[in-house]
Amino acid sequence: MSRQDSLDELRGLTRAFATERDWEQFHTPKNLAMALSVEVAELVEHFQWLPTGALDELDERKREGIRHELADVLLYLVQLADKTGVDLRAAALEKMALNRAKYPAAQVKGDARKYDEY
Amino acid sequence: MSRQDSLDELRGLTRAFATERDWEQFHTPKNLAMALSVEVAELVEHFQWLPTGALDELDERKREGIRHELADVLLYLVQLADKTGVDLRAAALEKMALNRAKYPAAQVKGDARKYDEY
Amino acid sequence: MSRQDSLDELRGLTRAFATERDWEQFHTPKNLAMALSVEVAELVEHFQWLPTGALDELDERKREGIRHELADVLLYLVQLADKTGVDLRAAALEKMALNRAKYPAAQVKGDARKYDEY
Amino acid sequence: MSRQDSLDELRGLTRAFATERDWEQFHTPKNLAMALSVEVAELVEHFQWLPTGALDELDERKREGIRHELADVLLYLVQLADKTGVDLRAAALEKMALNRAKYPAAQVKGDARKYDEY
Repeated sequence: MSRQDSLDELRGLTRAFATERDWEQFHTPKNLAMALSVEVAELVEHFQWLPTGALDELDERKREGIRHELADVLLYLVQLADKTGVDLRAAALEKMALNRAKYPAAQVKGDARKYDEY
Repeated sequence: MSRQDSLDELRGLTRAFATERDWEQFHTPKNLAMALSVEVAELVEHFQWLPTGALDELDERKREGIRHELADVLLYLVQLADKTGVDLRAAALEKMALNRAKYPAAQVKGDARKYDEY
Repeated sequence: MSRQDSLDELRGLTRAFATERDWEQFHTPKNLAMALSVEVAELVEHFQWLPTGALDELDERKREGIRHELADVLLYLVQLADKTGVDLRAAALEKMALNRAKYPAAQVKGDARKYDEY
Repeated sequence: MSRQDSLDELRGLTRAFATERDWEQFHTPKNLAMALSVEVAELVEHFQWLPTGALDELDERKREGIRHELADVLLYLVQLADKTGVDLRAAALEKMALNRAKYPAAQVKGDARKYDEY
Protein backbone atom coordinates (compact mmCIF):
# COMPACT_ATOMS: atom_id res chain seq x y z
CA MET A 1 0.00 0.00 0.00
CA SER A 2 1.36 3.40 -0.86
CA ARG A 3 2.01 5.91 1.88
CA GLN A 4 -0.53 8.67 2.45
CA ASP A 5 0.46 12.03 0.98
CA SER A 6 2.32 14.22 3.52
CA LEU A 7 -0.11 17.12 3.34
CA ASP A 8 -3.14 14.87 3.82
CA GLU A 9 -1.42 13.05 6.66
CA LEU A 10 -0.57 16.30 8.46
CA ARG A 11 -4.11 17.60 7.99
CA GLY A 12 -5.45 14.51 9.69
CA LEU A 13 -2.95 14.74 12.54
CA THR A 14 -3.54 18.43 13.22
CA ARG A 15 -7.31 17.91 13.19
CA ALA A 16 -7.03 15.11 15.77
CA PHE A 17 -4.63 17.19 17.88
CA ALA A 18 -7.01 20.15 18.03
CA THR A 19 -10.09 18.01 18.64
CA GLU A 20 -8.50 16.11 21.51
CA ARG A 21 -7.67 19.44 23.20
CA ASP A 22 -10.94 21.17 22.35
CA TRP A 23 -8.86 23.89 20.69
CA GLU A 24 -10.95 24.21 17.53
CA GLN A 25 -12.82 27.09 19.18
CA PHE A 26 -9.58 29.15 19.05
CA HIS A 27 -8.65 28.08 15.53
CA THR A 28 -10.52 30.63 13.47
CA PRO A 29 -8.80 31.37 10.16
CA LYS A 30 -7.96 34.83 11.49
CA ASN A 31 -6.27 33.46 14.61
CA LEU A 32 -4.44 30.78 12.63
CA ALA A 33 -3.14 33.42 10.22
CA MET A 34 -1.78 35.39 13.19
CA ALA A 35 -0.22 32.26 14.70
CA LEU A 36 1.36 31.46 11.34
CA SER A 37 2.91 34.92 11.16
CA VAL A 38 4.32 34.55 14.67
CA GLU A 39 5.94 31.21 13.80
CA VAL A 40 7.45 32.67 10.63
CA ALA A 41 8.98 35.47 12.69
CA GLU A 42 10.54 32.89 15.03
CA LEU A 43 12.09 31.39 11.91
CA VAL A 44 13.24 34.78 10.63
CA GLU A 45 14.84 35.46 14.01
CA HIS A 46 17.37 32.67 13.39
CA PHE A 47 18.59 34.42 10.24
CA GLN A 48 18.40 38.11 11.09
CA TRP A 49 22.04 38.75 12.01
CA LEU A 50 23.61 36.11 9.73
CA PRO A 51 25.30 37.07 6.44
CA THR A 52 23.23 34.62 4.33
CA GLY A 53 22.06 31.76 6.54
CA ALA A 54 23.86 29.16 4.40
CA LEU A 55 24.46 25.80 6.07
CA ASP A 56 28.05 26.57 7.13
CA GLU A 57 26.81 29.53 9.21
CA LEU A 58 24.47 27.30 11.26
CA ASP A 59 25.59 25.29 14.26
CA GLU A 60 23.70 22.22 15.46
CA ARG A 61 21.59 24.17 17.93
CA LYS A 62 20.50 26.70 15.30
CA ARG A 63 19.72 23.93 12.82
CA GLU A 64 17.45 22.25 15.34
CA GLY A 65 15.69 25.54 16.05
CA ILE A 66 15.18 26.15 12.34
CA ARG A 67 13.86 22.61 11.83
CA HIS A 68 11.30 23.08 14.60
CA GLU A 69 10.18 26.47 13.32
CA LEU A 70 9.84 25.22 9.73
CA ALA A 71 7.63 22.46 11.14
CA ASP A 72 5.50 24.91 13.10
CA VAL A 73 4.99 27.05 10.01
CA LEU A 74 3.92 24.01 7.98
CA LEU A 75 1.55 22.80 10.71
CA TYR A 76 -0.25 26.15 10.98
CA LEU A 77 -0.30 26.47 7.20
CA VAL A 78 -1.98 23.06 6.88
CA GLN A 79 -4.57 24.03 9.50
CA LEU A 80 -5.33 27.38 7.90
CA ALA A 81 -5.74 25.75 4.47
CA ASP A 82 -8.03 23.17 6.07
CA LYS A 83 -10.27 25.84 7.66
CA THR A 84 -10.49 27.87 4.46
CA GLY A 85 -11.18 24.83 2.28
CA VAL A 86 -7.99 25.08 0.24
CA ASP A 87 -6.22 22.05 -1.25
CA LEU A 88 -2.62 23.12 -0.66
CA ARG A 89 -1.04 20.89 -3.30
CA ALA A 90 -3.50 21.96 -6.00
CA ALA A 91 -3.14 25.61 -4.99
CA ALA A 92 0.67 25.41 -5.17
CA LEU A 93 0.60 23.75 -8.60
CA GLU A 94 -1.84 26.40 -9.83
CA LYS A 95 0.41 29.16 -8.48
CA MET A 96 3.53 27.63 -10.06
CA ALA A 97 1.77 27.72 -13.42
CA LEU A 98 0.82 31.38 -12.87
CA ASN A 99 4.41 32.20 -11.86
CA ARG A 100 5.80 30.51 -14.96
CA ALA A 101 3.56 32.72 -17.11
CA LYS A 102 4.29 35.86 -15.07
CA TYR A 103 8.06 35.44 -15.05
CA PRO A 104 9.10 33.90 -18.38
CA ALA A 105 12.55 32.37 -17.92
CA ALA A 106 13.96 34.03 -21.02
CA GLN A 107 12.90 37.47 -19.82
CA VAL A 108 13.80 37.45 -16.14
CA LYS A 109 16.94 35.33 -16.12
CA GLY A 110 19.24 36.46 -13.29
CA ASP A 111 17.09 39.45 -12.38
CA ALA A 112 15.29 39.58 -9.02
CA ARG A 113 13.13 42.62 -9.62
CA LYS A 114 9.47 42.08 -8.97
CA TYR A 115 7.17 41.47 -11.88
CA ASP A 116 5.51 44.88 -11.51
CA GLU A 117 8.84 46.61 -11.95
CA TYR A 118 9.23 45.38 -15.51
CA MET B 1 2.42 3.69 -9.99
CA SER B 2 1.80 5.76 -6.89
CA ARG B 3 1.89 9.54 -7.12
CA GLN B 4 4.96 11.38 -5.85
CA ASP B 5 4.53 12.93 -2.43
CA SER B 6 3.35 16.57 -2.63
CA LEU B 7 6.27 18.02 -0.71
CA ASP B 8 8.84 16.16 -2.83
CA GLU B 9 7.03 17.18 -6.00
CA LEU B 10 6.98 20.85 -5.02
CA ARG B 11 10.65 20.76 -4.05
CA GLY B 12 11.49 19.48 -7.51
CA LEU B 13 9.32 22.07 -9.22
CA THR B 14 10.67 25.02 -7.24
CA ARG B 15 14.24 23.89 -7.88
CA ALA B 16 13.62 23.75 -11.62
CA PHE B 17 11.83 27.11 -11.56
CA ALA B 18 14.75 28.85 -9.82
CA THR B 19 17.40 27.17 -11.95
CA GLU B 20 15.68 28.09 -15.21
CA ARG B 21 15.64 31.74 -14.12
CA ASP B 22 19.12 31.75 -12.56
CA TRP B 23 17.48 32.95 -9.34
CA GLU B 24 19.35 30.62 -7.00
CA GLN B 25 21.87 33.40 -6.36
CA PHE B 26 19.09 35.39 -4.62
CA HIS B 27 17.70 32.40 -2.73
CA THR B 28 19.87 32.44 0.36
CA PRO B 29 18.06 31.03 3.40
CA LYS B 30 18.01 34.52 4.86
CA ASN B 31 16.34 36.03 1.79
CA LEU B 32 13.89 33.15 1.53
CA ALA B 33 12.94 33.61 5.20
CA MET B 34 12.22 37.29 4.49
CA ALA B 35 10.20 36.42 1.37
CA LEU B 36 8.25 33.86 3.39
CA SER B 37 7.39 36.48 6.00
CA VAL B 38 6.22 38.88 3.30
CA GLU B 39 3.91 36.25 1.78
CA VAL B 40 2.48 35.40 5.19
CA ALA B 41 1.67 39.09 5.73
CA GLU B 42 -0.17 39.16 2.40
CA LEU B 43 -2.21 36.27 3.76
CA VAL B 44 -2.78 38.01 7.10
CA GLU B 45 -3.95 41.10 5.23
CA HIS B 46 -7.01 39.21 3.98
CA PHE B 47 -8.13 38.53 7.55
CA GLN B 48 -7.16 41.68 9.42
CA TRP B 49 -10.53 43.45 9.46
CA LEU B 50 -12.75 40.34 9.46
CA PRO B 51 -14.46 39.09 12.63
CA THR B 52 -13.10 35.53 12.35
CA GLY B 53 -12.35 34.80 8.69
CA ALA B 54 -14.77 31.85 8.63
CA LEU B 55 -15.88 30.74 5.15
CA ASP B 56 -19.14 32.69 5.18
CA GLU B 57 -17.18 35.96 5.59
CA LEU B 58 -15.18 35.33 2.40
CA ASP B 59 -16.42 36.19 -1.07
CA GLU B 60 -15.07 34.49 -4.18
CA ARG B 61 -12.44 37.16 -4.79
CA LYS B 62 -11.10 36.92 -1.26
CA ARG B 63 -11.05 33.11 -1.40
CA GLU B 64 -8.97 33.23 -4.55
CA GLY B 65 -6.56 35.68 -2.97
CA ILE B 66 -6.23 33.48 0.10
CA ARG B 67 -5.64 30.39 -2.03
CA HIS B 68 -2.84 32.11 -3.94
CA GLU B 69 -1.19 33.41 -0.77
CA LEU B 70 -1.38 30.01 0.94
CA ALA B 71 0.35 28.60 -2.14
CA ASP B 72 3.07 31.27 -2.04
CA VAL B 73 3.74 30.55 1.62
CA LEU B 74 4.05 26.82 0.94
CA LEU B 75 6.34 27.38 -2.05
CA TYR B 76 8.76 29.57 -0.10
CA LEU B 77 8.59 27.21 2.86
CA VAL B 78 9.53 24.26 0.63
CA GLN B 79 12.46 26.23 -0.80
CA LEU B 80 13.73 27.35 2.59
CA ALA B 81 13.54 23.79 3.93
CA ASP B 82 15.41 22.62 0.83
CA LYS B 83 18.23 25.14 1.32
CA THR B 84 18.59 24.35 5.03
CA GLY B 85 18.51 20.60 4.47
CA VAL B 86 15.28 19.98 6.38
CA ASP B 87 12.85 17.17 5.52
CA LEU B 88 9.59 19.03 6.09
CA ARG B 89 7.43 15.95 6.62
CA ALA B 90 9.82 14.39 9.12
CA ALA B 91 10.24 17.74 10.90
CA ALA B 92 6.46 18.19 11.18
CA LEU B 93 5.95 14.66 12.54
CA GLU B 94 8.75 15.22 15.05
CA LYS B 95 7.19 18.53 16.15
CA MET B 96 3.71 16.98 16.47
CA ALA B 97 5.21 14.41 18.85
CA LEU B 98 6.88 17.18 20.87
CA ASN B 99 3.61 19.14 20.98
CA ARG B 100 1.68 16.10 22.20
CA ALA B 101 4.12 15.76 25.09
CA LYS B 102 4.17 19.49 25.81
CA TYR B 103 0.39 19.94 25.80
CA PRO B 104 -1.17 16.76 27.25
CA ALA B 105 -4.81 16.67 26.14
CA ALA B 106 -6.10 15.99 29.64
CA GLN B 107 -4.30 19.04 31.03
CA VAL B 108 -4.91 21.73 28.42
CA LYS B 109 -8.40 20.84 27.17
CA GLY B 110 -10.21 24.02 26.09
CA ASP B 111 -7.46 26.32 27.33
CA ALA B 112 -5.41 28.35 24.85
CA ARG B 113 -2.75 29.67 27.19
CA LYS B 114 0.76 29.03 26.07
CA TYR B 115 2.65 26.17 27.59
CA ASP B 116 4.98 28.49 29.49
CA GLU B 117 2.03 30.10 31.25
CA TYR B 118 1.11 26.88 33.04
CA MET C 1 14.14 75.06 27.85
CA SER C 2 11.71 72.86 26.00
CA ARG C 3 12.15 69.11 26.03
CA GLN C 4 13.76 67.45 23.02
CA ASP C 5 11.28 65.79 20.67
CA SER C 6 10.76 62.09 21.51
CA LEU C 7 11.80 60.79 18.12
CA ASP C 8 14.99 62.85 18.08
CA GLU C 9 15.76 61.81 21.65
CA LEU C 10 15.31 58.11 20.86
CA ARG C 11 17.44 58.41 17.74
CA GLY C 12 20.26 59.82 19.83
CA LEU C 13 19.90 57.13 22.48
CA THR C 14 19.82 54.22 20.03
CA ARG C 15 22.84 55.60 18.19
CA ALA C 16 24.83 55.79 21.43
CA PHE C 17 23.66 52.32 22.48
CA ALA C 18 24.83 50.73 19.22
CA THR C 19 28.11 52.63 19.13
CA GLU C 20 29.02 51.68 22.71
CA ARG C 21 28.50 48.01 21.82
CA ASP C 22 30.11 48.18 18.36
CA TRP C 23 26.85 46.80 16.97
CA GLU C 24 26.55 49.19 14.03
CA GLN C 25 28.22 46.57 11.84
CA PHE C 26 25.11 44.36 12.29
CA HIS C 27 22.63 47.20 11.83
CA THR C 28 22.23 47.23 8.08
CA PRO C 29 18.80 48.46 7.00
CA LYS C 30 18.02 44.91 5.84
CA ASN C 31 18.86 43.39 9.22
CA LEU C 32 17.00 46.13 11.10
CA ALA C 33 13.91 45.51 8.94
CA MET C 34 14.07 41.82 9.86
CA ALA C 35 14.54 42.62 13.55
CA LEU C 36 11.59 45.01 13.38
CA SER C 37 9.39 42.28 11.90
CA VAL C 38 10.44 39.88 14.66
CA GLU C 39 9.52 42.39 17.38
CA VAL C 40 6.15 43.06 15.76
CA ALA C 41 5.44 39.34 15.80
CA GLU C 42 6.24 39.22 19.52
CA LEU C 43 3.62 41.94 19.90
CA VAL C 44 1.12 40.08 17.71
CA GLU C 45 1.65 36.98 19.82
CA HIS C 46 0.05 38.70 22.81
CA PHE C 47 -3.16 39.23 20.86
CA GLN C 48 -3.48 36.10 18.74
CA TRP C 49 -5.93 34.12 20.88
CA LEU C 50 -7.80 37.09 22.40
CA PRO C 51 -11.24 38.16 21.16
CA THR C 52 -10.25 41.80 20.57
CA GLY C 53 -7.33 42.66 22.85
CA ALA C 54 -9.30 45.45 24.56
CA LEU C 55 -7.92 46.58 27.93
CA ASP C 56 -10.27 44.42 30.01
CA GLU C 57 -8.88 41.28 28.34
CA LEU C 58 -5.31 42.12 29.45
CA ASP C 59 -3.93 41.25 32.87
CA GLU C 60 -1.00 43.12 34.38
CA ARG C 61 1.57 40.63 33.05
CA LYS C 62 0.25 40.88 29.50
CA ARG C 63 0.15 44.68 29.68
CA GLU C 64 3.78 44.76 30.68
CA GLY C 65 4.71 42.42 27.83
CA ILE C 66 2.82 44.57 25.35
CA ARG C 67 4.46 47.74 26.67
CA HIS C 68 7.92 46.24 26.22
CA GLU C 69 7.17 44.98 22.71
CA LEU C 70 5.70 48.31 21.62
CA ALA C 71 8.93 49.90 22.84
CA ASP C 72 11.09 47.41 20.93
CA VAL C 73 9.15 48.09 17.74
CA LEU C 74 9.58 51.83 18.14
CA LEU C 75 13.30 51.49 18.89
CA TYR C 76 13.99 49.41 15.77
CA LEU C 77 11.78 51.69 13.71
CA VAL C 78 13.76 54.73 14.83
CA GLN C 79 17.03 52.99 13.96
CA LEU C 80 15.82 51.86 10.54
CA ALA C 81 14.59 55.38 9.73
CA ASP C 82 17.95 56.74 10.87
CA LYS C 83 19.91 54.39 8.59
CA THR C 84 17.70 55.11 5.57
CA GLY C 85 17.78 58.86 6.13
CA VAL C 86 14.06 59.22 6.82
CA ASP C 87 12.61 61.91 9.12
CA LEU C 88 9.89 59.83 10.79
CA ARG C 89 7.72 62.74 11.88
CA ALA C 90 7.79 64.40 8.45
CA ALA C 91 7.14 61.04 6.74
CA ALA C 92 4.14 60.35 9.01
CA LEU C 93 2.64 63.79 8.40
CA GLU C 94 3.14 63.36 4.63
CA LYS C 95 1.46 59.93 4.77
CA MET C 96 -1.46 61.24 6.83
CA ALA C 97 -2.07 63.86 4.13
CA LEU C 98 -1.96 61.14 1.44
CA ASN C 99 -4.36 58.98 3.46
CA ARG C 100 -6.80 61.86 3.87
CA ALA C 101 -6.89 62.29 0.09
CA LYS C 102 -7.11 58.54 -0.57
CA TYR C 103 -9.91 57.86 1.91
CA PRO C 104 -12.23 60.90 1.92
CA ALA C 105 -14.24 60.78 5.13
CA ALA C 106 -17.56 61.27 3.36
CA GLN C 107 -16.92 58.32 1.07
CA VAL C 108 -15.49 55.67 3.38
CA LYS C 109 -17.36 56.36 6.61
CA GLY C 110 -17.84 53.11 8.56
CA ASP C 111 -16.40 50.95 5.78
CA ALA C 112 -13.10 49.11 6.26
CA ARG C 113 -12.56 47.89 2.74
CA LYS C 114 -9.22 48.75 1.31
CA TYR C 115 -8.96 51.70 -1.01
CA ASP C 116 -8.31 49.49 -4.03
CA GLU C 117 -11.59 47.66 -3.47
CA TYR C 118 -13.65 50.78 -4.14
CA MET D 1 5.55 78.39 22.10
CA SER D 2 7.31 75.06 21.82
CA ARG D 3 6.14 72.53 19.27
CA GLN D 4 4.02 69.61 20.40
CA ASP D 5 5.93 66.36 20.78
CA SER D 6 5.80 64.23 17.60
CA LEU D 7 4.27 61.20 19.26
CA ASP D 8 1.54 63.25 20.94
CA GLU D 9 0.86 65.10 17.70
CA LEU D 10 0.53 61.85 15.72
CA ARG D 11 -1.74 60.35 18.36
CA GLY D 12 -4.07 63.31 18.03
CA LEU D 13 -4.03 63.16 14.23
CA THR D 14 -4.69 59.42 14.02
CA ARG D 15 -7.55 59.72 16.53
CA ALA D 16 -9.20 62.44 14.47
CA PHE D 17 -8.65 60.49 11.24
CA ALA D 18 -10.35 57.37 12.62
CA THR D 19 -13.20 59.29 14.24
CA GLU D 20 -14.00 61.21 11.06
CA ARG D 21 -14.27 57.91 9.18
CA ASP D 22 -16.08 55.99 11.92
CA TRP D 23 -13.27 53.45 11.76
CA GLU D 24 -12.74 53.09 15.50
CA GLN D 25 -15.04 50.07 15.43
CA PHE D 26 -12.40 48.21 13.36
CA HIS D 27 -9.46 49.43 15.42
CA THR D 28 -9.36 46.81 18.13
CA PRO D 29 -5.83 46.27 19.48
CA LYS D 30 -5.86 42.83 17.86
CA ASN D 31 -6.72 44.23 14.43
CA LEU D 32 -4.23 47.07 14.78
CA ALA D 33 -1.49 44.57 15.69
CA MET D 34 -2.30 42.62 12.51
CA ALA D 35 -2.30 45.80 10.41
CA LEU D 36 1.04 46.79 11.95
CA SER D 37 2.53 43.43 10.98
CA VAL D 38 1.28 43.82 7.42
CA GLU D 39 2.87 47.26 7.09
CA VAL D 40 6.16 45.98 8.46
CA ALA D 41 6.14 43.23 5.83
CA GLU D 42 5.63 45.86 3.11
CA LEU D 43 8.74 47.53 4.49
CA VAL D 44 10.66 44.24 4.62
CA GLU D 45 9.69 43.58 1.00
CA HIS D 46 11.83 46.53 -0.12
CA PHE D 47 14.93 44.95 1.42
CA GLN D 48 14.46 41.24 0.81
CA TRP D 49 16.64 40.82 -2.27
CA LEU D 50 19.14 43.59 -1.53
CA PRO D 51 22.63 42.83 -0.16
CA THR D 52 22.32 45.19 2.83
CA GLY D 53 19.80 47.90 1.99
CA ALA D 54 22.40 50.66 2.50
CA LEU D 55 21.54 54.01 0.91
CA ASP D 56 23.59 53.45 -2.26
CA GLU D 57 21.49 50.37 -3.08
CA LEU D 58 18.25 52.39 -3.04
CA ASP D 59 16.98 54.38 -6.00
CA GLU D 60 14.58 57.30 -5.62
CA ARG D 61 11.49 55.14 -6.12
CA LYS D 62 12.55 52.64 -3.48
CA ARG D 63 13.42 55.42 -1.03
CA GLU D 64 9.96 56.88 -1.42
CA GLY D 65 8.35 53.47 -0.87
CA ILE D 66 10.46 52.93 2.25
CA ARG D 67 9.58 56.38 3.58
CA HIS D 68 5.86 55.70 3.16
CA GLU D 69 6.07 52.27 4.79
CA LEU D 70 8.08 53.60 7.73
CA ALA D 71 5.33 56.17 8.17
CA ASP D 72 2.59 53.53 8.04
CA VAL D 73 4.37 51.46 10.67
CA LEU D 74 4.69 54.46 12.97
CA LEU D 75 1.06 55.45 12.48
CA TYR D 76 -0.27 51.99 13.38
CA LEU D 77 2.19 51.76 16.26
CA VAL D 78 0.92 55.06 17.68
CA GLN D 79 -2.68 53.86 17.37
CA LEU D 80 -1.99 50.51 19.00
CA ALA D 81 -0.18 52.20 21.89
CA ASP D 82 -3.09 54.58 22.25
CA LYS D 83 -5.65 51.76 22.45
CA THR D 84 -3.59 49.79 24.98
CA GLY D 85 -2.89 52.83 27.13
CA VAL D 86 0.86 52.84 26.58
CA ASP D 87 2.99 56.01 26.62
CA LEU D 88 5.39 55.15 23.79
CA ARG D 89 8.15 57.53 24.82
CA ALA D 90 8.14 56.37 28.44
CA ALA D 91 7.98 52.72 27.34
CA ALA D 92 10.95 53.18 25.00
CA LEU D 93 13.04 54.92 27.66
CA GLU D 94 12.17 52.14 30.15
CA LYS D 95 13.16 49.49 27.59
CA MET D 96 16.43 51.25 26.77
CA ALA D 97 17.32 51.14 30.47
CA LEU D 98 16.47 47.42 30.59
CA ASN D 99 18.57 46.80 27.46
CA ARG D 100 21.54 48.65 28.93
CA ALA D 101 21.41 46.35 31.96
CA LYS D 102 20.83 43.22 29.88
CA TYR D 103 23.63 43.87 27.39
CA PRO D 104 26.49 45.55 29.27
CA ALA D 105 28.69 47.27 26.70
CA ALA D 106 31.88 45.78 28.09
CA GLN D 107 30.52 42.25 27.80
CA VAL D 108 28.79 42.24 24.42
CA LYS D 109 31.00 44.56 22.38
CA GLY D 110 30.97 43.51 18.72
CA ASP D 111 28.96 40.36 19.38
CA ALA D 112 25.41 40.02 18.02
CA ARG D 113 24.37 36.88 19.83
CA LYS D 114 21.16 37.20 21.75
CA TYR D 115 21.33 37.74 25.47
CA ASP D 116 20.02 34.23 26.19
CA GLU D 117 22.90 32.69 24.27
CA TYR D 118 25.49 34.04 26.71
